Amino acid sequence: MTRRPNLAVVGATGAVGEVLLGLLSLRQDIWGEVRLVASPRSAGRTPVVRGEPVEVVPLAEEAFAGIDVAVFAVPDAVSAQWAPIAAAKGIVVVDDSAAFRTAGDVPLVVPEVNAAALRIRPRGIVASPAGTTLALVAAVGALHAEYGLEQLVVATYQAASGEGREGMAALRDQTALVAGTEVGRQTGDLRAVIADEGPFAAPLALNAVPWTGGLCEGGWSAQELGLRDEARKILGLPALRVSATCVRIPVVRTHALAVHARFEREVSQEHAQDILRETPGVVLYDDPAAGEFPTPNDAVGTDPVWAGRVRRALDEPDALDLFLCGDNLRKGAALNLLQIAELVAGELSAGSPEGS
Amino acid sequence: MTRRPNLAVVGATGAVGEVLLGLLSLRQDIWGEVRLVASPRSAGRTPVVRGEPVEVVPLAEEAFAGIDVAVFAVPDAVSAQWAPIAAAKGIVVVDDSAAFRTAGDVPLVVPEVNAAALRIRPRGIVASPAGTTLALVAAVGALHAEYGLEQLVVATYQAASGEGREGMAALRDQTALVAGTEVGRQTGDLRAVIADEGPFAAPLALNAVPWTGGLCEGGWSAQELGLRDEARKILGLPALRVSATCVRIPVVRTHALAVHARFEREVSQEHAQDILRETPGVVLYDDPAAGEFPTPNDAVGTDPVWAGRVRRALDEPDALDLFLCGDNLRKGAALNLLQIAELVAGELSAGSPEGS
Repeated sequence: MTRRPNLAVVGATGAVGEVLLGLLSLRQDIWGEVRLVASPRSAGRTPVVRGEPVEVVPLAEEAFAGIDVAVFAVPDAVSAQWAPIAAAKGIVVVDDSAAFRTAGDVPLVVPEVNAAALRIRPRGIVASPAGTTLALVAAVGALHAEYGLEQLVVATYQAASGEGREGMAALRDQTALVAGTEVGRQTGDLRAVIADEGPFAAPLALNAVPWTGGLCEGGWSAQELGLRDEARKILGLPALRVSATCVRIPVVRTHALAVHARFEREVSQEHAQDILRETPGVVLYDDPAAGEFPTPNDAVGTDPVWAGRVRRALDEPDALDLFLCGDNLRKGAALNLLQIAELVAGELSAGSPEGS
Repeated sequence: MTRRPNLAVVGATGAVGEVLLGLLSLRQDIWGEVRLVASPRSAGRTPVVRGEPVEVVPLAEEAFAGIDVAVFAVPDAVSAQWAPIAAAKGIVVVDDSAAFRTAGDVPLVVPEVNAAALRIRPRGIVASPAGTTLALVAAVGALHAEYGLEQLVVATYQAASGEGREGMAALRDQTALVAGTEVGRQTGDLRAVIADEGPFAAPLALNAVPWTGGLCEGGWSAQELGLRDEARKILGLPALRVSATCVRIPVVRTHALAVHARFEREVSQEHAQDILRETPGVVLYDDPAAGEFPTPNDAVGTDPVWAGRVRRALDEPDALDLFLCGDNLRKGAALNLLQIAELVAGELSAGSPEGS
């Protein structure tokens, strides 16, 4: 291919889409046309991309004409329907939904960890993991390379924007409702003030909701099983022991995770900190004596996963405890999608046989 | 003793004290005088106890004259100074601070779990554990009796009121500040809007702060080590493996915990649920299909620890994952103090030799 590849952004007006368009203006410009695709409801809007307004076209077969790479940042059901349609046209689809993440014939890619997996994509679809998985494997993958990972116990602190614009609006509205009330002071039932839970399973403002995703066997949520399946797939450890409890908290943006990781070999706090300091895509922010530990607010709008609170378990010389924060809209979604799309574009430009 | 014992409430005007006075009006009235003690700043106030206004007296030697049992709900340093003074007068002190929790000659008591420990108190002081520990051992203690506990991995979701009235006021003020701003929508630095972090290590509204308590060796926080030491002491398991990450989240009241518990024997989800259903002081709220899982808001103002999300670990037949919520001001502090004080009062009335 001698021309620049053409990119479609499907879901261009959503929470992830908006961040992705912003990144397109910041990163090296390798694309020919950038076409914006969204639901018919959003068609006709003109977001600015690379300094120019671009009209949003409705999601339909025609929207894919002439496109080489399509990134999808849409709900699972929309991806499940439309990604195969685009792929059938020879387009490489990079999908952010959960629809294909655990499919055996779809690679699940974090470029810093398993870029090579990208090359084998029999269905023409590449998946990007959940934001929680992404923060987890970015940090733990590097430690695995050194120590050999055996087990993960994870508790998440997930942001409202994991439920897209609807989640962000719901938390904003709920926060405004409770800010001035007695409920916001100490007691009383949030449910009496918050009539609309939005996309959450219970009121989220001034609360924590230990439920994300659908119900699976054994009382697990779909996101908890997804975290286990995705981490195993990306790290190439099909028998890795993983227990996760996924909890939504009243944060607008950036997922956080408390991680207990057990390895084959003895670990040291300082060496683990050194590894994380040198890991691409990870920033070590870990000096509690100086008030340095990552909070979600620190990571908002930044590319890397922030790692801190690195401790060797007191009762297990082969285990580490740490705390991670990653912007779920940026590296947790938009940036990872774009990084994968850029790698694919590089292949196409190089005339690789997978290029269509 | 033929008369009713006299009770002093030291810290009567604080966040825990206020809840304790409310409980005194609700529970069976076994007390003679109830004397309210606080800092000179709060002296002269007249909170209502058992239907009558009672004037608050300043903390001084005279405040303990004629008292049989004193509950302390004050900062660590105040307890460290005044609890021994009261105990030297023959008063049994029931202390909520961290000052004596891990002392070898001070029992640490949760009546439902280890009431017998109360009997041996050479210093005349009995300690009540941190609210996080309390929720943890109330639920896990019962599972330990059946399965034999070997390891705990805990991540906490702690409420602002763990820092007393000051913490509650700070979260309220911070929430009001961010509710209407762009920060409350999606992006931007909370630090630009929240100039005063209050007693927290970073802005708490719309954020999560993975730091509670002072810095200890190895990067651990004092509360993380406290959770380990206190759980070991109450459960009588000095070699129990414990890893904890303590995180403050923007909730006013009620601590929550994600717990991974590994046992000596194989567990079953249903049997574990049955055990928790029958455990005194615990309510099982665990039917995700019906939308039932505990959130902090559900537990506010209630006595029990709420347990839910009980799952058998998929990769460890001897481990359970669960989620716990307990009102940190009520059972997590005021109620446990009062339960211990009532047990002591029972001893005194029965003319036990420990009675002074």
